[in-house]
Amino acid sequence: MKMENEYFLTGKIHEECGVFGVYHVSSAASLSYFGLHALQHRGQEAAGIATSDGKQITCIKGKGLITEVFNNETINKMDGIHAIGHVRYSTDGGNEIENVQPIMVRAHTGHFGAVHNGQIVNASELKEDLENQGSIFQGSSDSEIMLHLIQREAGTFVEKIMGACRKMEGAFAFIIMTKDCMYAVRDKNGLRPLSLAFLEDGYCISSETCAFDIVGAKFIRDIEPGEVVRIASDGVKSFHYTQEVQHKMCAMEYIYFARPDSSIEGINVHTSRRHAGMLLAQSDDVEADIVIGVPDSSLSAAIGYSEASGLPYEIGLIKNRYVGRTFIQPTQQQRERGVRMKLSAISSIVSGKRVVMVDDSIVRGTTSRRIVQLLKDAGATEVHVRIASAPFSSPCFYGVDTSTYEELISARMGVDELCTYINADTLKFMTIEQMREAIPTRDLCVSCFSGQYPTALFSFQKVIKKK
Amino acid sequence: MKMENEYFLTGKIHEECGVFGVYHVSSAASLSYFGLHALQHRGQEAAGIATSDGKQITCIKGKGLITEVFNNETINKMDGIHAIGHVRYSTDGGNEIENVQPIMVRAHTGHFGAVHNGQIVNASELKEDLENQGSIFQGSSDSEIMLHLIQREAGTFVEKIMGACRKMEGAFAFIIMTKDCMYAVRDKNGLRPLSLAFLEDGYCISSETCAFDIVGAKFIRDIEPGEVVRIASDGVKSFHYTQEVQHKMCAMEYIYFARPDSSIEGINVHTSRRHAGMLLAQSDDVEADIVIGVPDSSLSAAIGYSEASGLPYEIGLIKNRYVGRTFIQPTQQQRERGVRMKLSAISSIVSGKRVVMVDDSIVRGTTSRRIVQLLKDAGATEVHVRIASAPFSSPCFYGVDTSTYEELISARMGVDELCTYINADTLKFMTIEQMREAIPTRDLCVSCFSGQYPTALFSFQKVIKKK
Amino acid sequence: MKMENEYFLTGKIHEECGVFGVYHVSSAASLSYFGLHALQHRGQEAAGIATSDGKQITCIKGKGLITEVFNNETINKMDGIHAIGHVRYSTDGGNEIENVQPIMVRAHTGHFGAVHNGQIVNASELKEDLENQGSIFQGSSDSEIMLHLIQREAGTFVEKIMGACRKMEGAFAFIIMTKDCMYAVRDKNGLRPLSLAFLEDGYCISSETCAFDIVGAKFIRDIEPGEVVRIASDGVKSFHYTQEVQHKMCAMEYIYFARPDSSIEGINVHTSRRHAGMLLAQSDDVEADIVIGVPDSSLSAAIGYSEASGLPYEIGLIKNRYVGRTFIQPTQQQRERGVRMKLSAISSIVSGKRVVMVDDSIVRGTTSRRIVQLLKDAGATEVHVRIASAPFSSPCFYGVDTSTYEELISARMGVDELCTYINADTLKFMTIEQMREAIPTRDLCVSCFSGQYPTALFSFQKVIKKK
Amino acid sequence: MKMENEYFLTGKIHEECGVFGVYHVSSAASLSYFGLHALQHRGQEAAGIATSDGKQITCIKGKGLITEVFNNETINKMDGIHAIGHVRYSTDGGNEIENVQPIMVRAHTGHFGAVHNGQIVNASELKEDLENQGSIFQGSSDSEIMLHLIQREAGTFVEKIMGACRKMEGAFAFIIMTKDCMYAVRDKNGLRPLSLAFLEDGYCISSETCAFDIVGAKFIRDIEPGEVVRIASDGVKSFHYTQEVQHKMCAMEYIYFARPDSSIEGINVHTSRRHAGMLLAQSDDVEADIVIGVPDSSLSAAIGYSEASGLPYEIGLIKNRYVGRTFIQPTQQQRERGVRMKLSAISSIVSGKRVVMVDDSIVRGTTSRRIVQLLKDAGATEVHVRIASAPFSSPCFYGVDTSTYEELISARMGVDELCTYINADTLKFMTIEQMREAIPTRDLCVSCFSGQYPTALFSFQKVIKKK
Repeated sequence: MKMENEYFLTGKIHEECGVFGVYHVSSAASLSYFGLHALQHRGQEAAGIATSDGKQITCIKGKGLITEVFNNETINKMDGIHAIGHVRYSTDGGNEIENVQPIMVRAHTGHFGAVHNGQIVNASELKEDLENQGSIFQGSSDSEIMLHLIQREAGTFVEKIMGACRKMEGAFAFIIMTKDCMYAVRDKNGLRPLSLAFLEDGYCISSETCAFDIVGAKFIRDIEPGEVVRIASDGVKSFHYTQEVQHKMCAMEYIYFARPDSSIEGINVHTSRRHAGMLLAQSDDVEADIVIGVPDSSLSAAIGYSEASGLPYEIGLIKNRYVGRTFIQPTQQQRERGVRMKLSAISSIVSGKRVVMVDDSIVRGTTSRRIVQLLKDAGATEVHVRIASAPFSSPCFYGVDTSTYEELISARMGVDELCTYINADTLKFMTIEQMREAIPTRDLCVSCFSGQYPTALFSFQKVIKKK
Repeated sequence: MKMENEYFLTGKIHEECGVFGVYHVSSAASLSYFGLHALQHRGQEAAGIATSDGKQITCIKGKGLITEVFNNETINKMDGIHAIGHVRYSTDGGNEIENVQPIMVRAHTGHFGAVHNGQIVNASELKEDLENQGSIFQGSSDSEIMLHLIQREAGTFVEKIMGACRKMEGAFAFIIMTKDCMYAVRDKNGLRPLSLAFLEDGYCISSETCAFDIVGAKFIRDIEPGEVVRIASDGVKSFHYTQEVQHKMCAMEYIYFARPDSSIEGINVHTSRRHAGMLLAQSDDVEADIVIGVPDSSLSAAIGYSEASGLPYEIGLIKNRYVGRTFIQPTQQQRERGVRMKLSAISSIVSGKRVVMVDDSIVRGTTSRRIVQLLKDAGATEVHVRIASAPFSSPCFYGVDTSTYEELISARMGVDELCTYINADTLKFMTIEQMREAIPTRDLCVSCFSGQYPTALFSFQKVIKKK
Repeated sequence: MKMENEYFLTGKIHEECGVFGVYHVSSAASLSYFGLHALQHRGQEAAGIATSDGKQITCIKGKGLITEVFNNETINKMDGIHAIGHVRYSTDGGNEIENVQPIMVRAHTGHFGAVHNGQIVNASELKEDLENQGSIFQGSSDSEIMLHLIQREAGTFVEKIMGACRKMEGAFAFIIMTKDCMYAVRDKNGLRPLSLAFLEDGYCISSETCAFDIVGAKFIRDIEPGEVVRIASDGVKSFHYTQEVQHKMCAMEYIYFARPDSSIEGINVHTSRRHAGMLLAQSDDVEADIVIGVPDSSLSAAIGYSEASGLPYEIGLIKNRYVGRTFIQPTQQQRERGVRMKLSAISSIVSGKRVVMVDDSIVRGTTSRRIVQLLKDAGATEVHVRIASAPFSSPCFYGVDTSTYEELISARMGVDELCTYINADTLKFMTIEQMREAIPTRDLCVSCFSGQYPTALFSFQKVIKKK
Repeated sequence: MKMENEYFLTGKIHEECGVFGVYHVSSAASLSYFGLHALQHRGQEAAGIATSDGKQITCIKGKGLITEVFNNETINKMDGIHAIGHVRYSTDGGNEIENVQPIMVRAHTGHFGAVHNGQIVNASELKEDLENQGSIFQGSSDSEIMLHLIQREAGTFVEKIMGACRKMEGAFAFIIMTKDCMYAVRDKNGLRPLSLAFLEDGYCISSETCAFDIVGAKFIRDIEPGEVVRIASDGVKSFHYTQEVQHKMCAMEYIYFARPDSSIEGINVHTSRRHAGMLLAQSDDVEADIVIGVPDSSLSAAIGYSEASGLPYEIGLIKNRYVGRTFIQPTQQQRERGVRMKLSAISSIVSGKRVVMVDDSIVRGTTSRRIVQLLKDAGATEVHVRIASAPFSSPCFYGVDTSTYEELISARMGVDELCTYINADTLKFMTIEQMREAIPTRDLCVSCFSGQYPTALFSFQKVIKKK
């Protein structure tokens, strides 16, 4: 749950979007607003909602938080009983308005539009192919590719979607809306989450179940890998565009991205993190006085560590809730003199203590080093860093913003070297096996820890080779 | 740590301001920005900074968060080595721009200005008296009264301030700035906090010590009740305007207002809350499965309760971080259908569990009722509410926004009745004695729990009588 | 020269865009900003600029005036020596962000983009055809069609453009930019203006020559009907995609749209209006005391009328300069009581006078009626309305926002009836022959006066038939 | 009628405010909005409205145009049947929010507030005296002084106002509002305009009569010099606070500030300007081809010149209507290459012509020089500058922003030298006698032309002496 510029503040990685849809409900726009608000942690740079009143589709979108893009006036303008919406995180090169979703197709045969979470690994290949056939691309989002593929497929609309899905490789969770139908789609490896729920007399689709709770929807089930769910006036129908499916849910969803109150494939995120913390403690024998977590995403693991280790759980770090986009940054000189905006250490808690500091992951290492320093400045005598996941040593090509080895410190350093770098007294990670134990789903994608990718990588292959 | 409209969302009470000052530092404006940012939880409706370059005073202020009122351009415009700043919460009737602080006096003998936290109980009497002598008031803030009193006193500037202080009854912490001096002032009962620190080659003054940590200042000491501290080019000097002093620090600062990483009169806020939670548990014999806290202010007490009771501490409630001022509210119908924006219960944690829910206080009771319902909807079999303070049964006239008995549910209901009202299985409060044990400072103001006020109440006396 | 909501205030028609481009100049973005600022009267609802530094294209666009979409920060971000820009007026149904221009194609073979003024009359036919071949359309702008056509043509880039042009029927002036080339294109009937100039060591292209003056460019020549001008590092080259050309410049450009300081096809706009006023006077024998014009577009004609008639020219109507987009409107009751925001009559000028009121055109008649009333309320004894063009009796399909007969009062009423309707004492129009005399260009499109359209109308034909 | 940054663009002087009030009308806030909108040319930097519903006063104010400070929501919030409002131009040192008007006094005996146009010349003396008696000043506006004086006077409210007026020397037009009364006040020399009108069942007060036309009010009469008009539920009553009155209406109101459709002391502004142009022509024998005016304020004089001289009136200069506050400025290099934002010359009009260019006044000379150059660049063979007023050679201390001799070019140069400086072929001014002839009111203040001031100057005297 992060604000936009957190990456630069904390060195954390970013998820690249949340999707949400409602079908046949009253005030579809405002329910989407509430739902997207619950998914805001998945992307803070742009937001959009498209609604349909059964005849016509209206779309409003823009840069910023959902609360910045929409207000009462705009929400009220959007009549409709169906809606899809999107919150977006974007990398530097893709911050153009053309990439903000939903992306709409205004066709003489009927308008339709889509929202997307994930990353299509054969996007350049598909795009080049489509361009050679005469298509033009206004943005660089994968949604646009999906829409082009649909347009060029033959058959009924659901057949077109299935045809398009068969051409795309990678991680994707799409919601597609026509004026009177809605389609929920997941990739065949099940890399990105997408769930279905009842809402009023209709349905609700969301990247995370936490959005269901907020709008009062009742969870039905997850969309299956390789499945297209079609919701129309004649009810919900399921289509499978392939039989070659896996259940490679992204492990980072549990470890870092998802909200603790979400459940993914039946497993509550907080519970899995707490479990991870317990496992970390069980294989640990460090002598310490207190356990603290790095807020917010590591608090669950810290509680688990405390419970299993018997060491008291403490609030040793405070996060300032008012850091936002327009935030003025301290100058380098101010930073050196100790000006800190985001995290504070509670001196009276950590002073004179041997501290176990639990964090969810280490990406670049700079943040960990800064927090360790913060704790030592506040008087901690020892800082033992425990990471509730394995070393993040390989880039992700499925929707997480870490695309090179260079930016991953665990690709360059072993644990001992890294421990020295972050100035910790000791440093421990989990093993991949422990992670699987903490997250007892059918299967996980742990490629960023193992370097074993569940799909072909197409042009990204060269990143792997360059290493 | 609350956003503007939280009162309506949660029924919580509000602090009415934070003050901050720096003397003889480089980039005084941006350090004030960072300092006020750390105090943002004390007021989100308006903010302002006045700087002095030793010759001239510049003041910029406006409505909104500190990050909304200031940006790089405005901060850079404000040259100066001294600065005072303010964050403000305001009651409905006082939201005019005239009340936003700092309030400046542009006098032919030299400009000066002030920021204020607290409430002067003889404000109307003083104001009427001053008006009868020819003064005019543009706003309704107590700072304006202070400035008028200073102007009419005789002697050196510090003598004028001391004369003014002797006339004011109630709770106040002022920082006053002339073009080359700064004055920190506390009321004789010590009701509102104010502390002094070293910063670079100069000094820093703040309502809470958490702001010192953020700007890299080193705590020196608290300003004393009845003291005026004068900071000038010849150093720091202390003046006492009265000998009749008490140490009646507001108990609610520890219980609810202050940030957990602040220390007030040498006692860390988080530690006192944790202690309160332990005391609550020690006098409790409820049978339960887990302990949860209402985020954010009750987490410390919940941890303490968990530790003392041996019941596992859990994250059962999640707070949405992106709720802001411009937030669209669910309609009544949506609310009834379960649309909830602010807090979510984690069903997989609380379902089937007997839950001890720790909260810091109950004001109107509506929020507690809503949260209990949230937990029961999420499957909690029992909800035992434990409040880490005594029943809030009397209005506060010292800067907390609860000025009538009507809005205080504990003024109207006993504990059993209130337990039924909020639909809890059991409900327990602390005693005032336990509170004093948890907060071992010299003395506390517990008037909102006891109805015993440390000062005369002047025109507010009629509120008491009306009861 | 009109603000956004003027149509509703004055019943005037709207032009639908201005285009501007610079090639090989320093600070291309800020020169485009200045140029578009000079064209702001052609569209106030959205604006955008795309720049190229020879390697990469950057595009920023949004809703509002050019001064609202861009500021120093955004302009400075846009490096580049080439640029194209657009100001847009949009009809109600086309106000989506997808229609704001420039529209960019991000292709693996190189990015390119376009800006457009005009209206393609076979747009639906082309769009349907392209969709059937697999293209998708995100917006409803004609630029998007052009870009699709280009993409599907074969040959060099200029050949692709020429191929695309041959398929489009209607009115168009395009500027197309690749990373290192620029193309200026006009339709074969020459319905919309587009001119070329020298600027610094490079070139400048604009809808109107007034923009040349503002950026210091030196006029070279108009782009020819049916011509594609290619500007590249090897200089300017001309291509003609067809020989079947006409010179049907839109008469309304002279009468109403263009700025008086622009010259179109060598004829200054102010001079042609003045000439029209003189012709109006020469065929008139009304007895009156003064001549006034309706600001701003009719002042030139009023001066011409005054000169030819010998009647004194007076300032009888004042226009409020501060009416803007966010303007609060008077209620109906306030309007009836005489609350007027936009135009005021100077009573001391018109009181007791027989007034000749010169206006450029009558579209709905409501504005004329309101202004006549304004003058009579201010004491004018007679109001003789003289229109510096013929009756506007047929819809325009070439880029002017009047697409039905219903909204054109001259399609429903004769001159006498209209005179009664607007409550004038007498009413006279020009003849089409007089208009041609006032605007001595090679040929004019006068279809909105004559109902004779210079192109096939495709699906718009049914509007004509419905009449 | 100028935008904020016009001074820097054109070298023109600034008026310092417009005031407006309505008493006993429906929707007082929106009528004030419309009225202030008509007065916007008198100040574009800040605006405010205070309303009273007979019991309570509400005040909203801020920086920017009236359309920027208010929107439908804020206007609708302001219940009330009485209102006063203000538009403000401010000098650099006085741009603080404390100076934005109305300024309210919140007194235990009843709230009241004031708006002001003018300048009190003994302001520092009064302020120092008041401060010595214990008053504090938050801003530097003269309204605040007036409010302090009122507070300290004895008697009924109207007696307090009259007492205050007797103490103030200089130029002032105040509107003062209590919860149920309104007071209109002018200084004893009548330097600033203020008029009274009927509106609905109540009354309207305005700096200029053009605002009456816009809200549908019917002019009654001007407030007299030395008069206090009290409007209350028992009707309108007149009070005279002194018998030593003069009628020294500011000549610059006619020449430059006021809107042409306003009438001041019974004389229409446009008519007086036209008359001035005629007088200029009658004493002129220049041989020329055309007459042009510098838009907007000099068009009336140019028309008069044309009529009296027989030379044709032409539109030779066009002003861009979209220049606003946030406008990006051309760089020096761009400026040298001919980038011009504000004014354009129509080459086809002026090329090869001997031009008489009529302007209202010359302050710094830089603008005139720039415009002459513009015309010569556009091909004018001769430019004869005719100024419709006498040389502006002395500073104004009565509300016009020219407070030093240094900035007035006519204080330093004779006509011949100035003619050379602005690069005109010939240059002529009017005489003061001609100005009086053109503006046949009882008497005028022409101190900025004559150096003879109608009041004592107090501390401003030193400016005169320094010369």
